[in-house]
Amino acid sequence: MKVGGEHFRTIWLKPGDERVVQLIDQRFLPHRFVIEEVHTVEQMATAIREMHVRGAGLIGASAGYGMYLAAIEAAERGSLDEQLAHAAAQLKATRPTAVNLSWAVERQIKNVAQGKNAKEKIAFALQTARSIADEDVEQCRMIGLHGLKLIRQIARKKAGKRVNVLTHCNAGWLAFVDYGSATAPIYAAYDSELPVHVWVAETRPRNQGSKLTAWELGEHGVPHTLIADSAAGHLMQRGEVDLVLVGTDRTTRTGDVANKIGTYLKALAAKDNDVPFYVALPSSSFDWKSRDGLKEIPIEERGAEEVTNVDGWREGQHVEVRVAPKESPAANYGFDVTPRYLVTGLITERGMCDANEKSIRALFPEHAP
Amino acid sequence: MKVGGEHFRTIWLKPGDERVVQLIDQRFLPHRFVIEEVHTVEQMATAIREMHVRGAGLIGASAGYGMYLAAIEAAERGSLDEQLAHAAAQLKATRPTAVNLSWAVERQIKNVAQGKNAKEKIAFALQTARSIADEDVEQCRMIGLHGLKLIRQIARKKAGKRVNVLTHCNAGWLAFVDYGSATAPIYAAYDSELPVHVWVAETRPRNQGSKLTAWELGEHGVPHTLIADSAAGHLMQRGEVDLVLVGTDRTTRTGDVANKIGTYLKALAAKDNDVPFYVALPSSSFDWKSRDGLKEIPIEERGAEEVTNVDGWREGQHVEVRVAPKESPAANYGFDVTPRYLVTGLITERGMCDANEKSIRALFPEHAP
Repeated sequence: MKVGGEHFRTIWLKPGDERVVQLIDQRFLPHRFVIEEVHTVEQMATAIREMHVRGAGLIGASAGYGMYLAAIEAAERGSLDEQLAHAAAQLKATRPTAVNLSWAVERQIKNVAQGKNAKEKIAFALQTARSIADEDVEQCRMIGLHGLKLIRQIARKKAGKRVNVLTHCNAGWLAFVDYGSATAPIYAAYDSELPVHVWVAETRPRNQGSKLTAWELGEHGVPHTLIADSAAGHLMQRGEVDLVLVGTDRTTRTGDVANKIGTYLKALAAKDNDVPFYVALPSSSFDWKSRDGLKEIPIEERGAEEVTNVDGWREGQHVEVRVAPKESPAANYGFDVTPRYLVTGLITERGMCDANEKSIRALFPEHAP
Repeated sequence: MKVGGEHFRTIWLKPGDERVVQLIDQRFLPHRFVIEEVHTVEQMATAIREMHVRGAGLIGASAGYGMYLAAIEAAERGSLDEQLAHAAAQLKATRPTAVNLSWAVERQIKNVAQGKNAKEKIAFALQTARSIADEDVEQCRMIGLHGLKLIRQIARKKAGKRVNVLTHCNAGWLAFVDYGSATAPIYAAYDSELPVHVWVAETRPRNQGSKLTAWELGEHGVPHTLIADSAAGHLMQRGEVDLVLVGTDRTTRTGDVANKIGTYLKALAAKDNDVPFYVALPSSSFDWKSRDGLKEIPIEERGAEEVTNVDGWREGQHVEVRVAPKESPAANYGFDVTPRYLVTGLITERGMCDANEKSIRALFPEHAP
């Protein structure tokens, strides 16, 4: 999508030097647009763990490129298979909840094994990394087209009044390689000149809503208004939300949705106010092995300082302030699980389905258990 | 309650000079404990509007003292009744949602009218301001004793394991004159050596949870853990919450509860997970005229900068940082309404009742419409 009028993806190979990966370091948005160069799998693991990159699709694409960098390094050291296994474990350990991570790493392992020598293995790794990124882009584009129908329906009913979509966290192009999942239908609607407006929940504790979603919508020109996470229910009670549209880090084959902490509360409010609640995801975010999201999906716990402190910008400087008392402990759960009975539907690259095993399997029959 | 081992109320007359009101300026907590001197009703209106003081009971007590200061000023200018009417309007306009504000102002107007001359009127105003504050303390103390029974029951069932109470915003002693509403049962439980632990929701956008509730619990020694507002549902899904206990800025005579934005989402999660959801309030927080909270209670909208910016402390300095993009607009609703069907019960100074008109009226028959 566009930044200052220029098209960017979130991750790409450095033009003229295919041994280097470039990515947008999202820690400094919205106040600084920083491009980071990643040379090693070690650096890529750090970028994922420390959230220079984040979001289901982008974590997958980054892991894909990370495995490619690992293959180059390993070949130079002459112990490719062993080193790649080590890199795979290293990457998988960075973030526990997003299933795209292990999906991308395992796809690399499988494909690289087809190479007969180091040179071939590196070529396979490069091809796979590129495919993961390109497929992510194409899947998100298709999610946009399918989801656009929903927004168009609402726009027709509202006869010209603005369509209010509420989203949580960043399931935007910054969370993928391009387009985004939850934002893809929004961008498609905006580009089709539908009167779409987005309520952006700030998404404490890391503020991906206010830092990333507000920024990318603003850069593309989409009208939006930032709210505290807690305001979502009140807006729905007042009839100010026509559609909730979120992404997911992992969805079970039965339709339970793990997503950024607080998604569950928004789904409850949507149910209580008869507001449709949709989850947009490429098929790489399904966990085909899991049946029960609440019991089976691991929920990442992060450092307390993300809750007790807030970082932002003051006079051009990146500054972190402490909000809570020095002595108060904090707990920081990264995700929650929205049970399928609260989900109106899923929007995938193959179209929409209900949040249940039968309906999901009808769209993806090749994943029958 | 205690601050550094010493007992404080939130507001009091200056010892040795009864023409001056002293109060804790809560804007600087938890990092600085500032006592502000208020000399005029103008200053008191600013203190309420700019949230040096906040919280249902404390807004009422501050308005009571504000009217007393107005009476002194007015007598000096020789136009007492007219000036008092002006002061009443000025104070009522500071915050729209908390009903204690108009309740305290009207009580003052009625009582001051009984004075035959300026001296008597001032004496009545002083007596009324003191009574409002003292009754607030006594009512909160009684709420503590009634609510303690609830916590004791849970503690018995859990046989020694910690009782986890979740609260939102600050309905602590800082929101009243002493004890607090939602915190009164917690302090009573802690002082009775029950193993109580509090999940403190940080309460964006003004962070009253992390700044005020965490601080006052910490000063009193009550074990607590800070969480993002969005984490409440996840904790309930995991069985980590035994009781939700919140305050209210205004509750209809039918049991609809206006409280800090986000309370409604916590009530939805409590219902979905069979966690009891109680609201603690002195009778001064009932709006006896209102039937339908969603339609009739005015919801305060505050400045966008409370959402886009965060203030905290860095190296001993009070610093505000901008989190959101410069161009992104924000909406800031101060309160939401939790419909009565989500409320397990109300804890008042006269005991507990259900959140419906019949049950509330049985406790407060004098307010029959």
